[in-house]
Amino acid sequence: MTHEAGIPLGIRFKLLSDTPQDSAAQVVSDVVVGDYRDLDTLREFARGCDVITFDHEHVPTEHLRALEADGIPVRPGPDALVHAQDKGVMRAKLDAIGVPCPRHRIVADPEDVVRFAAEGDGFPVVLKTVRGGYDGKGVWVVETAEEASDPFRAGVPVLAEEKIDYVRELAANVVRSPHGQAVAYPVVESQQVNGVCDTVIAPAPGLDEDLALRAEEMALRIAKELGVVGHLAVELFEIRNDDGSSGVLVNELAMRPHNSGHWTQDGAITSQFANHVRAVLDLPLGDPRPRAPWTVMVNVLGGDYPDMYSAYLHCMARDPKLKIHMYGKDVKPGRKVGHVNTYGDDLDDVLERARHAAGYLRGTITE
Amino acid sequence: MTHEAGIPLGIRFKLLSDTPQDSAAQVVSDVVVGDYRDLDTLREFARGCDVITFDHEHVPTEHLRALEADGIPVRPGPDALVHAQDKGVMRAKLDAIGVPCPRHRIVADPEDVVRFAAEGDGFPVVLKTVRGGYDGKGVWVVETAEEASDPFRAGVPVLAEEKIDYVRELAANVVRSPHGQAVAYPVVESQQVNGVCDTVIAPAPGLDEDLALRAEEMALRIAKELGVVGHLAVELFEIRNDDGSSGVLVNELAMRPHNSGHWTQDGAITSQFANHVRAVLDLPLGDPRPRAPWTVMVNVLGGDYPDMYSAYLHCMARDPKLKIHMYGKDVKPGRKVGHVNTYGDDLDDVLERARHAAGYLRGTITE
Repeated sequence: MTHEAGIPLGIRFKLLSDTPQDSAAQVVSDVVVGDYRDLDTLREFARGCDVITFDHEHVPTEHLRALEADGIPVRPGPDALVHAQDKGVMRAKLDAIGVPCPRHRIVADPEDVVRFAAEGDGFPVVLKTVRGGYDGKGVWVVETAEEASDPFRAGVPVLAEEKIDYVRELAANVVRSPHGQAVAYPVVESQQVNGVCDTVIAPAPGLDEDLALRAEEMALRIAKELGVVGHLAVELFEIRNDDGSSGVLVNELAMRPHNSGHWTQDGAITSQFANHVRAVLDLPLGDPRPRAPWTVMVNVLGGDYPDMYSAYLHCMARDPKLKIHMYGKDVKPGRKVGHVNTYGDDLDDVLERARHAAGYLRGTITE
Repeated sequence: MTHEAGIPLGIRFKLLSDTPQDSAAQVVSDVVVGDYRDLDTLREFARGCDVITFDHEHVPTEHLRALEADGIPVRPGPDALVHAQDKGVMRAKLDAIGVPCPRHRIVADPEDVVRFAAEGDGFPVVLKTVRGGYDGKGVWVVETAEEASDPFRAGVPVLAEEKIDYVRELAANVVRSPHGQAVAYPVVESQQVNGVCDTVIAPAPGLDEDLALRAEEMALRIAKELGVVGHLAVELFEIRNDDGSSGVLVNELAMRPHNSGHWTQDGAITSQFANHVRAVLDLPLGDPRPRAPWTVMVNVLGGDYPDMYSAYLHCMARDPKLKIHMYGKDVKPGRKVGHVNTYGDDLDDVLERARHAAGYLRGTITE
């Protein structure tokens, strides 16, 4: 999708891909298949690149520092990216700059989890390995000390967080360029199913205007304080305070075009992918404002039927305004294989169309 | 641009390209460099393709028939495409189905041009070689028999047409699928400079609603009668009849995504490129309606400076809503190297923004 956004800008990509079957490898012309964890592979790949960027956060921080030492611009740079790679580093930094987060600390072992619970309102407690998790992987919600033993088996530091009784999940997406220009997309509502993003509504319905503005400002401030270049997604919990006022706490950070920003492809003047490319090349950023009153994105997960072709025909025929984005992945149950975007004036209609299409493609809706 | 539109649909292209530097060859992953005039090259290329389509009309008709005989679906097929390849065949067919055209006939030599002129209102007469021309190439406007000798030197039949005193040029863009579904984009105004498309305004400002509807219906009927599959651009002259009423005459046909439809990338719910791909694969077509009251496309022609980078920065910074589409071509004076799209509620503003950006990129505007 980043390649797609780069084509009209005249930007050419060289892709380092795990396999020739990866989604991006199917559509980019200059592909190197190799392991992003191997420094020699990275160095060989980086030769001749004007700038390096990512569609995931898993390239080892020390390898990125080595590429920078070789003179290759890495954007976002390792000093910023580490905050999206390591939840412990992220929480420490957000604390230091005064950004509200769930109560948290690194815990040593299951007994320490019990102490962490007792320091606050008790169980349940959320445990996260500080590195390697996404889409609900590497995250446990535990009720007892016994349940708290699993996360420690990976040999990675474990972060404990209070379980937030949130109103809903939001996301604030911003893009920042090396010389400090930044843009903020409208704050969206993000609905998860089984820990995986299912639906995004832009803008978040009924969100207090002042809170929306504060969330955008917070995301812009995080981008600046962490030295982010490119797209930053700030996943938020919307909470109701004891005095009845609303607030937000930061859940996670992602430094790349993010699922909560896929709606921008069809719903914003400039997509998150185009603005990420513009930012990493230090080009002036594009207008992030929405083109329609409501845009909805629903992820298409793989269902029981590997061949989506007839469902695909049905969805296109049923809704000529539907925007389908397929990733060229083999269908496996629960795997994100694409998403659909819809937009319009009537939120109920926009939501129904997106949910019907995604459900039909998955096979959970058959009429 | 067709590849770009195919990515979200999950459509993968194999490209036959003249050179590795062609615009499409820079961004498509599966590229064969070869000569489209060579049947063996075409046959070798076509092996394993589900369907063949084009971004120009110059593949020899007889080669396309050979591919069809080999069992390769060619869309649009040679029986349709010949009407966009040969202006003599096109005029004869449009006459046969009762579509209004400028007065015309094939002429044998310069003396015959004089007779053609005398049969109507006299000189000037427009002469066109029946094959091989576009963007004003292969077209002559002659005032005398002496001037009429050039077109006959190519050894290709020459078509004479009355020179139309038109109000303006319009284009009706439609897309038709093999099973007969068809959609019509709003009729646009197309402004030419030195025979090359410069500006397209969608929809055509002030166009009589009834005439717009008739033009769309005419384009849909041409697509059906000629058996077009994919995108058909019908270039039209808007004329004022003696009784004061307005009408249209068909100027040219193009069977591929067309410059008069580039505005759809940012201005329509479904772009001409996406609908062309959907049509040639017999997928249900997407909604062709506009997303904004006005969309303007202005072509970016090469100017005197080969490096557009600083102009590119200026345009992005000046207008964050600007949509730039660059083709990755080397800049040569007068060469189409890209286009810009703008959209909005105020036509004057939308026009000014597009013209400023295109002029700045070309170097004809410097502030």
